Amino acid sequence: MESIKVFAPATVANVACGFDIFGFAVDNPGDEIILRKKATPGVEITKIEGDNGRLTRDAAKNTVGISMLAYLHRLNSDQGVSVELKKKMPLGSGLGSSAASSVAGVFAINELMGRPLSQRDLLPFAMEGERFASGTPHADNVAPCLLGGFVAIRSYTPLDVIKIDTPKDLFATIVHPQIEVNTRDARNILRKETSLKNTITQMGNVAGLIAGLMKSDYDLISRSLVDVIIEPVRAILIPGFDEVKGAALNAGALGCSISGAGPSMFALSRDRDTAKRVGEAMQRAFTGVQIESEIYVSSINQDGPVVLG
Amino acid sequence: MESIKVFAPATVANVACGFDIFGFAVDNPGDEIILRKKATPGVEITKIEGDNGRLTRDAAKNTVGISMLAYLHRLNSDQGVSVELKKKMPLGSGLGSSAASSVAGVFAINELMGRPLSQRDLLPFAMEGERFASGTPHADNVAPCLLGGFVAIRSYTPLDVIKIDTPKDLFATIVHPQIEVNTRDARNILRKETSLKNTITQMGNVAGLIAGLMKSDYDLISRSLVDVIIEPVRAILIPGFDEVKGAALNAGALGCSISGAGPSMFALSRDRDTAKRVGEAMQRAFTGVQIESEIYVSSINQDGPVVLG
Repeated sequence: MESIKVFAPATVANVACGFDIFGFAVDNPGDEIILRKKATPGVEITKIEGDNGRLTRDAAKNTVGISMLAYLHRLNSDQGVSVELKKKMPLGSGLGSSAASSVAGVFAINELMGRPLSQRDLLPFAMEGERFASGTPHADNVAPCLLGGFVAIRSYTPLDVIKIDTPKDLFATIVHPQIEVNTRDARNILRKETSLKNTITQMGNVAGLIAGLMKSDYDLISRSLVDVIIEPVRAILIPGFDEVKGAALNAGALGCSISGAGPSMFALSRDRDTAKRVGEAMQRAFTGVQIESEIYVSSINQDGPVVLG
Repeated sequence: MESIKVFAPATVANVACGFDIFGFAVDNPGDEIILRKKATPGVEITKIEGDNGRLTRDAAKNTVGISMLAYLHRLNSDQGVSVELKKKMPLGSGLGSSAASSVAGVFAINELMGRPLSQRDLLPFAMEGERFASGTPHADNVAPCLLGGFVAIRSYTPLDVIKIDTPKDLFATIVHPQIEVNTRDARNILRKETSLKNTITQMGNVAGLIAGLMKSDYDLISRSLVDVIIEPVRAILIPGFDEVKGAALNAGALGCSISGAGPSMFALSRDRDTAKRVGEAMQRAFTGVQIESEIYVSSINQDGPVVLG
């Protein structure tokens, strides 16, 4: 194989109660990359589309390059590759844009080289991209992006990632408002301590969400999509947050919260029609505070990255 | 029916990572009560055995009476009953002694009166006993005692209790050392705040334990039986804690921690023989610090309270 084209999906991290430990993949949006073997060693980014010129083509400073460089280093390989990256998703949106690039890169190069490592083994390399992008090697976007489905991260040291089955008719709505929240800022406004009382409440919802997903108990999922620790702090970064969340719930969503560090918001619903209606209601609420937005509706993506050609 | 004899089981609350939200019932030890209708209104405790004279026979100040009085009050009933309580389990041991009495009482009177309320509806009355015994109406002993099995409490307000399936071959070992820890003290030494980092770790283990139990994934159960918030604080109240825990793990336990507020310690194992071996190893470790102890080995009790006659 001399070249390969790959898609890696956007992801919703945190999922209300699961700060830093829950995430799921969606069918769209996502990143596409084309990788071509080249005769000389090194990773060369030849083209980036869809980023409005914001991403560097320096492979050592772009998540798509960082994950591949870490992979090649580990394999002790001097294989050279050229990369075309098509950002088919918004940057800084809370949809795991950097994770999608990281995963696309390391998945593509592993395929191109005949799959010497398993998909799960690629996770640490993809996390290196996240370390660069956000200052911490968090896995709640990278893991669902790479593995597909809904993922719980039991532990970071050692890394312990669990796939959680989800009901077939569970649909996600993502609404991306045309504002930007810096991931580092969104992390820095969080308190370093939390009350034991809130911790207990959050743990109850974490237990409830896992049980609800595994039992396909939509009411339990709905009751568990509550975040008493992070959402109350970060909501202030999103104009119209209360209105948008209220609109989602009124339109029949099981729950609604911030996607990752925001500003995108996500909702879960029990069928595609509801998910669409929820998206339109959320968009209208953003319009009400003079903010334009894009809507994405998707099932829970079970595949993770895929080869397009 | 003029009289009834009932058994209600001991329970292990917290279960390592699930402070205030997880609990499970065991087959033994437990409480027995005999309830007899009497002609005059009121709850009269005529006899208490096995408490070394420590429990009051004043029904308004004994958990077994409090739950029944709350029940009768709610039903607006002037039915009178006399109660014999046989404590077949140690008091102040971290095994849900007060919960077992509470549940035995309210379960028995509901049966005696022809079951006007469902088992689940009895929970709030049983919790009134807990409020009296420990200062907070916590449910992590009462709920598994009443419902059987492994229980997660998603929320206290409103009360939302979820039953979690457990693997058939999961066995519990409880070792009760002959020392006493006051539940209020054990609660008062806890910090009111916890770091966000520890909260995230704990949430990961909560998610892992629920998923592990529901998937019958023993390795995941084992990795998830970790408590970074409560156990490090309360362990100092139990002489020999580290040695006992180490002995349990060395003997093949999946995990080991404090049962409820202690001083009893519990372990989970993947078959009865291991659970027995684990108990003996834990007992030897307590003996090593000059503390006598009793061992209980049991499957996860799926029945809750039962009518004995």
